[in-house]
Amino acid sequence: MASRVWPNELAEVDIAETCKSFMSPPVSDVDVLQQRRGEMSTRMEMLIMQTQVDFCRALEEVDGGTFKVDRWKRTEGGGGISCVMQDGKVFEKAGVNVSVVSGNLTEEAAKQMRSRGKVLKGRDGKLPFIAMGVSSVIHPKNPHIPTVHFNYRYFEIEEADGSKQWWFGGGTDLTPVYVDQEDAALFHGVLKQACAKHHPRYYPDFKKWCDKYFYVRHRGETRGIGGIFFDDLDSPDQEEVFNFVKSCAQTVVPCYLPIVRKHLNDPFTPEEKDWQQVRRGRYVEFNLVYDRGVKFGLATPGSRIESILMSLPLTARWEYMHEPKKGSKEAAMLEVLRNPREWI
Amino acid sequence: MASRVWPNELAEVDIAETCKSFMSPPVSDVDVLQQRRGEMSTRMEMLIMQTQVDFCRALEEVDGGTFKVDRWKRTEGGGGISCVMQDGKVFEKAGVNVSVVSGNLTEEAAKQMRSRGKVLKGRDGKLPFIAMGVSSVIHPKNPHIPTVHFNYRYFEIEEADGSKQWWFGGGTDLTPVYVDQEDAALFHGVLKQACAKHHPRYYPDFKKWCDKYFYVRHRGETRGIGGIFFDDLDSPDQEEVFNFVKSCAQTVVPCYLPIVRKHLNDPFTPEEKDWQQVRRGRYVEFNLVYDRGVKFGLATPGSRIESILMSLPLTARWEYMHEPKKGSKEAAMLEVLRNPREWI
Repeated sequence: MASRVWPNELAEVDIAETCKSFMSPPVSDVDVLQQRRGEMSTRMEMLIMQTQVDFCRALEEVDGGTFKVDRWKRTEGGGGISCVMQDGKVFEKAGVNVSVVSGNLTEEAAKQMRSRGKVLKGRDGKLPFIAMGVSSVIHPKNPHIPTVHFNYRYFEIEEADGSKQWWFGGGTDLTPVYVDQEDAALFHGVLKQACAKHHPRYYPDFKKWCDKYFYVRHRGETRGIGGIFFDDLDSPDQEEVFNFVKSCAQTVVPCYLPIVRKHLNDPFTPEEKDWQQVRRGRYVEFNLVYDRGVKFGLATPGSRIESILMSLPLTARWEYMHEPKKGSKEAAMLEVLRNPREWI
Repeated sequence: MASRVWPNELAEVDIAETCKSFMSPPVSDVDVLQQRRGEMSTRMEMLIMQTQVDFCRALEEVDGGTFKVDRWKRTEGGGGISCVMQDGKVFEKAGVNVSVVSGNLTEEAAKQMRSRGKVLKGRDGKLPFIAMGVSSVIHPKNPHIPTVHFNYRYFEIEEADGSKQWWFGGGTDLTPVYVDQEDAALFHGVLKQACAKHHPRYYPDFKKWCDKYFYVRHRGETRGIGGIFFDDLDSPDQEEVFNFVKSCAQTVVPCYLPIVRKHLNDPFTPEEKDWQQVRRGRYVEFNLVYDRGVKFGLATPGSRIESILMSLPLTARWEYMHEPKKGSKEAAMLEVLRNPREWI
């Protein structure tokens, strides 16, 4: 499979100039990006940096606050850019993280990948890899504004003969505190539209995968109302998968910001705020007990804990034996989480 | 090894009468307990019920509130009694749980036990077991009153030839928000005294084990200032190990309540409350990511989630890149968590 695709969307772009508009200079040197403008790793790094800045600017505009930008390096290779806004006017905690890491796969990581059906032939037992992605979790203050999460990532492994295995993964999902059919339809609708440009099965298949992945087994509930989730995507070809991921990444603003704006001034009661805090507790349970990325991150030497756990809410609550009243709005939300629904 | 020990502390006791003073009738039928008063399972069940009521009453006295008592049954065998006080005057969330469960070991549980060096010969592949314990986590409101946790448990497995393998486990540990040398010395001193009655190595060995067990690896911090922790204890003989566990269980009130009373009216600032909430977040991280009991519970079919997650605080907080100021009381606490200390 070709890792060099040409012509591409960067062909006519002044990379150095474009990088100036990002939240920070990219992880890779701008010179290197310019030299390797045809390579998928460059194209993906530019895409995730662009996604980060587009999303951060849209959130800043609606909140009035500004993101704190941290650049960090990983001793073992690569680094990242973490953008966090905490205790804003609208957002309790908003994190948008880019990471571009490289090195040799640890034995554990290689084993995990083999268990996912990948045949990997290393040179002298070594498997050089590059992994990059943009990920974000936004926890708003108002319980009528849902939490959103997205992650788009690219993985490349060099085998003994110099050939490259690569795949993309990602998804966007929504975690409301209360059911709002209109919000859910808008959110899923935007995702479905992006999927439809690429394959008619993408939306239904990746919607189902999302419900399955974000399942809090010990509670018998999904984390939220889903969206799309996919992993190990490597066909029909690199160009087409990248274009699909690009379409998805371009939806993060239009699938979420209209919902934020709609509920910006919704009044709420202390009871509604409490229910939000209980749901935040469940969010923490999913992320610490089940989330693959978190588990992988916590077990990986040299990983940046603060960026991994950026996804946790500022505050959460665990009430013993909390059970919403029958017929309440809270019970309606639980009902949806226990029985995932089609929204469009 | 004898599973029938006689005479014992129940020899002269009116079991039915004693049970009336407990938080609830015990999990096993009183008639069965009376018939089997010589057996270790009966003696341990009476001990954990007594520990539960002693601790609950002591907490109620200092708080002024009352525990909510839930009896629950497990379809697969056995059940439990969960006592919870939430949003009291002194305690934000206090849980004291007894469980007595029985059945056949699942294949996964048997595998886990074999990995701990146990040779288990089942009959027709079946290994009947009984497991029981008392466990408690107390999260006070005032950041100057530490969180305490204890757990004392007994495990019995019947092998093919009818013989029984058994062992005890347990421990008590303290998680303060601020360092208080006097509190730490009192807490560790009471535990050391209880240990010293049984073996001179118990306190130093189990103190070390505790620091090692309650380690939040991804943070490079222990959960709190430790105490004692032990597992798989089955020597020199059942009578002596039970007596040791009894000594430990009898310390839960004297090792904690004096500390609660001392700080009952300590004034605190919003900043101190915030730091408590950040520490609560770390408590959640330990419990959901590392704690064996929680992991085992969440993965076990038919387990009661609300009792397992009773240990989570009512509220917790995750601040991005939280780092206490140099020379502050918060930094002093972190320093202790990063470098476990001898307290006595």
